[in-house]
Amino acid sequence: MRLQAMCAALVLAACANAAAQAPPAPAQTAQPPSMADILAHSPVSDWRPLDPENTLYMELPAGRVVIELSPDFSPEHAANVRALARAHYWDGAAITRVQDNYVTQWGRAEGSPHDRGNARADIPVAEYDRSASGLPFTRLPDPDSYSRQTGFTNGFWAARDGAGRTWMPHCYGAIGVGRDNPPNTGDGSELYVVIGQAPRHLDRNLAMVGRVVQGMELLSGLKRGTGALGFYETPAERTPINSIRLASDVPEAQRVNLEALRTDSATFRTLIESRRFRRESFFVTPTGHINMCNVPLPVRVRPAS
Amino acid sequence: MRLQAMCAALVLAACANAAAQAPPAPAQTAQPPSMADILAHSPVSDWRPLDPENTLYMELPAGRVVIELSPDFSPEHAANVRALARAHYWDGAAITRVQDNYVTQWGRAEGSPHDRGNARADIPVAEYDRSASGLPFTRLPDPDSYSRQTGFTNGFWAARDGAGRTWMPHCYGAIGVGRDNPPNTGDGSELYVVIGQAPRHLDRNLAMVGRVVQGMELLSGLKRGTGALGFYETPAERTPINSIRLASDVPEAQRVNLEALRTDSATFRTLIESRRFRRESFFVTPTGHINMCNVPLPVRVRPAS
Repeated sequence: MRLQAMCAALVLAACANAAAQAPPAPAQTAQPPSMADILAHSPVSDWRPLDPENTLYMELPAGRVVIELSPDFSPEHAANVRALARAHYWDGAAITRVQDNYVTQWGRAEGSPHDRGNARADIPVAEYDRSASGLPFTRLPDPDSYSRQTGFTNGFWAARDGAGRTWMPHCYGAIGVGRDNPPNTGDGSELYVVIGQAPRHLDRNLAMVGRVVQGMELLSGLKRGTGALGFYETPAERTPINSIRLASDVPEAQRVNLEALRTDSATFRTLIESRRFRRESFFVTPTGHINMCNVPLPVRVRPAS
Repeated sequence: MRLQAMCAALVLAACANAAAQAPPAPAQTAQPPSMADILAHSPVSDWRPLDPENTLYMELPAGRVVIELSPDFSPEHAANVRALARAHYWDGAAITRVQDNYVTQWGRAEGSPHDRGNARADIPVAEYDRSASGLPFTRLPDPDSYSRQTGFTNGFWAARDGAGRTWMPHCYGAIGVGRDNPPNTGDGSELYVVIGQAPRHLDRNLAMVGRVVQGMELLSGLKRGTGALGFYETPAERTPINSIRLASDVPEAQRVNLEALRTDSATFRTLIESRRFRRESFFVTPTGHINMCNVPLPVRVRPAS
């Protein structure tokens, strides 16, 4: 049971559970508040419900993956993903690629076309980055290897170049639009999620459409593909996708009512500091620093009011 | 087959294969040399064979994981791991914990003691960092969120504080010694490997004993544990470990003769620059930066001379 004392970079689902289960920290304890304590003491107003129009349910044989779309960063691509989900485009699609320390990717197998509804065949706007104007920004004080400024915008990681442009970085759990070599060739029908060390060299080279907020372990814990770039060599190795639906298209009784901690809230700022300086008794040398991709973005089941 | 053009942060084994299979790049091509090209053109002297005294074979039902020990960073802990392997301590041990975006951990189940040979019960030296004196250092020019200087030492990642101390950072594939809350309570019998975004807040808080150089996907692609901190809730979920052996204790015919690219070589420096500036046609905006944990550390089967 070694290492149990490590307050870990928890899976977000687990983090939500911990928040729900953790008793309030007794005031007399010498231990600093844990992440669970901080979340358990947060005001309701520091949380926002996920918008069913921006939430996807990916149904796999092993369970449900919940995705939040990020129209702030890629309105045209997110709209196309929404249209494809509305058309049930991914019913019978599959996870076709799992490349270790890189990405899990899904789409329809070649030669298995499907109704695309109102989705566009081409999206002329690259949406690899955008103006930072008009977006809130909770900035981290620590340096980053790849960009001038890093932080959080409306529940997502955000990098900035210091010259007015911003983009969603490739952190663990981030979802991007696969494309061929020419830019603007991705229509949202093939998506990938980061399952390893953040491949930040992809930043500003692909359109980012969202992130996994629950069920990430169903995409990251799959057998790696043995073909080039981690593609599975035989169809039998693929994980079938039963469906991908917009939450707003699913009967209310089948939805999971998640809420996300606001990244412009005081609770989130407290959480960041508690992760920069790990004061739990396990830590001999707190680093006093953090990378944007290591900051948890808590999501939990909305408590009954 | 979208995203295939992405020259990926390859698994090291795949990288070795690519190096072996890639034809020399034709001189007239407009494409910049790929990682495979760079490695295929490297002089033999830029590679070093893995020392069988510093190499472990972990035999799992799905195959072999190869680990290189790092006595530069933790001589006492590495020696204890070596002694435990010599005593066949891990025969019948198991992978007991897989926490998503964090670590895979293994050891003996509680209540199943085993001969420890000459291994010590306690290691009084923490070995969380050491003097940088006497170690080669191939330094990266880009900033890091957690440490003043980053680079590579004798085939491993290395961070420095700029004040004479160095340590092995928690990059993907790095192996550390599990411990209880009090420092110096880890004896090497429980080890963990990083399987997600580098949890650098652990740096200088644990003894690092090596890294996985082949077979990483056998540790990262396992089903995540559903207990607290990713521990499996039932013994049946655990992956059994058939054995862990020092390569020098294995008959030569059963060894795999791996060699690693020297991190003080010209080829490695060329590789770093080719990854900082991705000039393949896929990339619209090369970042011009890289993080230490994103630099591949190539290992390949030693070519027949």
